[in-house]
Amino acid sequence: MAVQAVESRTSVPSAAPFGPAVALSCRECGERFDLGPSFACTSCFGPLEVAYELPAGDPEALRRRIESGPANIWRYAPLLPVPADVADRPNLEPGLTRLVKADNLAAELGVTGELYVKDDSGNPTHSFKDRVVAIAVEAARAFGFTTLSCSSTGNLAGAVGAAAARAGFRSCVFIPHDLEAGKVVMAAVYGGDLVGIEGTYDDVNRFCSELIGDPLGEGWGFVNVNLRPYYGEGSKTLAYEICEQLGWRLPDQIVVPVASGSQLTKIDKGLKELIALGLVEDRPYRIFGAQAQGCSPVSRAYKDGHDVVRPVKPDTIAKSLAIGNPADGPYVLDIARRTGGAVEDVDDERIVDAIRLLARTEGIFAETAGGVTVGVTRKLLESGVLDPALTTVVLNTGDGLKTLDAVAAGPTATIRPSLEAFRAAGLCEQ
Amino acid sequence: MAVQAVESRTSVPSAAPFGPAVALSCRECGERFDLGPSFACTSCFGPLEVAYELPAGDPEALRRRIESGPANIWRYAPLLPVPADVADRPNLEPGLTRLVKADNLAAELGVTGELYVKDDSGNPTHSFKDRVVAIAVEAARAFGFTTLSCSSTGNLAGAVGAAAARAGFRSCVFIPHDLEAGKVVMAAVYGGDLVGIEGTYDDVNRFCSELIGDPLGEGWGFVNVNLRPYYGEGSKTLAYEICEQLGWRLPDQIVVPVASGSQLTKIDKGLKELIALGLVEDRPYRIFGAQAQGCSPVSRAYKDGHDVVRPVKPDTIAKSLAIGNPADGPYVLDIARRTGGAVEDVDDERIVDAIRLLARTEGIFAETAGGVTVGVTRKLLESGVLDPALTTVVLNTGDGLKTLDAVAAGPTATIRPSLEAFRAAGLCEQ
Repeated sequence: MAVQAVESRTSVPSAAPFGPAVALSCRECGERFDLGPSFACTSCFGPLEVAYELPAGDPEALRRRIESGPANIWRYAPLLPVPADVADRPNLEPGLTRLVKADNLAAELGVTGELYVKDDSGNPTHSFKDRVVAIAVEAARAFGFTTLSCSSTGNLAGAVGAAAARAGFRSCVFIPHDLEAGKVVMAAVYGGDLVGIEGTYDDVNRFCSELIGDPLGEGWGFVNVNLRPYYGEGSKTLAYEICEQLGWRLPDQIVVPVASGSQLTKIDKGLKELIALGLVEDRPYRIFGAQAQGCSPVSRAYKDGHDVVRPVKPDTIAKSLAIGNPADGPYVLDIARRTGGAVEDVDDERIVDAIRLLARTEGIFAETAGGVTVGVTRKLLESGVLDPALTTVVLNTGDGLKTLDAVAAGPTATIRPSLEAFRAAGLCEQ
Repeated sequence: MAVQAVESRTSVPSAAPFGPAVALSCRECGERFDLGPSFACTSCFGPLEVAYELPAGDPEALRRRIESGPANIWRYAPLLPVPADVADRPNLEPGLTRLVKADNLAAELGVTGELYVKDDSGNPTHSFKDRVVAIAVEAARAFGFTTLSCSSTGNLAGAVGAAAARAGFRSCVFIPHDLEAGKVVMAAVYGGDLVGIEGTYDDVNRFCSELIGDPLGEGWGFVNVNLRPYYGEGSKTLAYEICEQLGWRLPDQIVVPVASGSQLTKIDKGLKELIALGLVEDRPYRIFGAQAQGCSPVSRAYKDGHDVVRPVKPDTIAKSLAIGNPADGPYVLDIARRTGGAVEDVDDERIVDAIRLLARTEGIFAETAGGVTVGVTRKLLESGVLDPALTTVVLNTGDGLKTLDAVAAGPTATIRPSLEAFRAAGLCEQ
């Protein structure tokens, strides 16, 4: 694997800006469209996704090509809608985050098989959003956009601000006005415009959809609206990395947080691609969705046996998952059911307990979204839905430093600097 | 490079727990001691450091061995005081953080050569401290300690707490009572004891030295006191990575933050080792130390032409560098002078400006210590001390999320979710 520093030189426009991608395809009716800044089918209004002609041939050669690539998501460039020279362009170089074998956590949860935590807090702005934004930035370049934008629950705003700064775009991002301090500062510090919206994430999202149709939004690439088909593909890299880090092996069970639901659907897409390419064995895997009880429209629909997701008004500490009207909710339901998984939710108290549990056992400080996946994993083990004897991967998609208030941890004692004071504090008995 | 998940199985005790390390050696008088939990020479009270018999032979073979190693500091295990099977033990797998080619920053600073930022915020607890703690943990295992401890300005406390949790040690760490919220929460969340001390870091440090000599501290490994010789070696990996990421090439100039000064001295040691092993060309390099004006005892001594560092009482926003009585200050002076470098300081305003500059140009959100190195880089370029035509590496050793108050960034505007309100906010003119 090449670990050399990536140059940020201005690169010559690539002949094939989207690499192996050949079209946008409607997820509902299958109609195909040219690769462009579109996100909805003109026939049926279904969401568009990227369609590929993926490299055929010897899987072993492809594996070797990937393994000798850069130590970030660009090792998978042959499977992404990006130009072949993408690693040479100025970007944040996200990905190849740790897959932690979590034996201590497994022991506490009664898992007898292998348990892993995919810790995406190691990305440049400390959430998985750096993956999706990196792909969207390349699409924005290809389409000639000059401003990068998004609606965000916080993590995405920081990821867009940082990526735009490095790649030479103006940025203007939109967040609900009441986010955590860490997320607000991180979204603002890169020098772009940050706009607080008086409302929920769903209000912010609606506003962005309006803006995109208005002359005000001309030349703007909204990473999760008009660039959404490209953006979403970044989440496939989580599936690729997990399998490569397991030694080119599928996990049996994977627990994924559900906000819009996009990430879960793209992890499924990534796993299917690896099977189709012969990079991993063709055998079943189960995907589980995890929500916070205070914003659990998909979990609710799953439990009620519905195919349709009824929007809710979020009320949870897991603000990064607080999307009351999840665009990909129905697809999440379909994947959970088709693969033999499930969708479950946990309340805020269990979220905080799970953050502490993961920190105490594996030294990983997750944001509330990580508390949701670990909490749901525990709940699904308790109810016998997750099989404790199989290989399970739990995603931590964000960083505890961005949701400090959730855990309210502090000193055990505060003392004068003397042995006497320390002795009196009673911390020495082990 | 192997990217597979590292197992955390309990490993069989290694026959050679310190790998290529053969002794502790006094930095002042050269007297040698057995490898043990000692830190001061019994003859002259000089600090002890680890001495090696490093692998002789074909540099190309060693390069290949390193390149095929794990994607973390353990790829350099043949050059560290750790057992050969270290990568299989439960640890945080720090290192191999991004070396970012900072062309945007270079343009703003007038650098015509290559400028890089080594961004150590990508480590598991988001500071370079994960490197040094990982080595100290292995020494603690070898010596049979059951509690891990430290005196800390914040980053180290989090790194020790996290590493101890994963590796199965009890932890009890000591910090000044007035640290940043992010650092306090992160130090506490891993479930060990966290003790706030009413005083400065230097008071905390003195207290720990007392505790180590008391029966209360029996069985305790203080990573930066009685394990300090091992701990310090972790900083060598910064030098190794920078050279490997430059394509096995020395930088011409490197700008390093100075708190205790240990990191700077170990980077120099690492570079010298790479030269001695034939892994890089034998040619000069210059090392520059960076301090905050509010705690600049080494910079003061450098400018005054002194060999002795006079302690100060710190008063700066760069709390992670606020060590008023730096143990390795004299060695920093020696290295800066010997290599043709310098030691410089910047005031708090310039620190904040530099944090914003780095964020705005490269999408890297540094903590105050990163503001110090970037600010000093700018100052040394302005004064002609740094050569703008050479290859320069600037270290960012920590994360902006831990020092949020320093930048006070916030929304450009807060509005109702309507196009009218957005238009009125006046953000559309580019």
